[in-house]
Amino acid sequence: MSDLSAALEIVGSRWALLIVARLMDGPQRYGDLQRDLGVPTNMLATRLRELESAGVLRRLPLRHNTRAYALTERGQGLRPAIDALGRWGAANGAGTNERPEP
Amino acid sequence: MSDLSAALEIVGSRWALLIVARLMDGPQRYGDLQRDLGVPTNMLATRLRELESAGVLRRLPLRHNTRAYALTERGQGLRPAIDALGRWGAANGAGTNERPEP
Repeated sequence: MSDLSAALEIVGSRWALLIVARLMDGPQRYGDLQRDLGVPTNMLATRLRELESAGVLRRLPLRHNTRAYALTERGQGLRPAIDALGRWGAANGAGTNERPEP
Repeated sequence: MSDLSAALEIVGSRWALLIVARLMDGPQRYGDLQRDLGVPTNMLATRLRELESAGVLRRLPLRHNTRAYALTERGQGLRPAIDALGRWGAANGAGTNERPEP
């Protein structure tokens, strides 16, 4: 398996990188993640479980009856990739719809 | 839409980044892409069409009755993100299954 496919095995599924990017700013509560990302709740629960078992994020102890999540060091290690994808998205993303020269 | 989600709109679907990474080495024929990546043919055809219409790759003129594809400049612009994901995959990917310290 190539290094890239090894990475995508963990963060290649829909919403995964968006969840990790959202946690780069610091721990987030479940409800805030769901509202900010607009991700369906069953999907969010699945992705959080997958990312937790892959050691990318961890669940914080419950406070005021709300679950919160934070990135692990492994999760923080995705910052260069997320920043690079963000730069590409800014220059080429769906919003910039003029077709480039081939 | 965040820059990251704008990028993932185009290259976030399954196989997309693996196809782009495979073309970083140079143009590839359809059959070689399919064999090297092990991607189902209908999925490959769909992803190539999507990536072509997003200006990430282009179809090369037919030679010896085989279709080939090459990255555009926009597609080459994904190299930093693909390299960063590959580095993360090498250090943290599915193969390295020891759980990191939280």
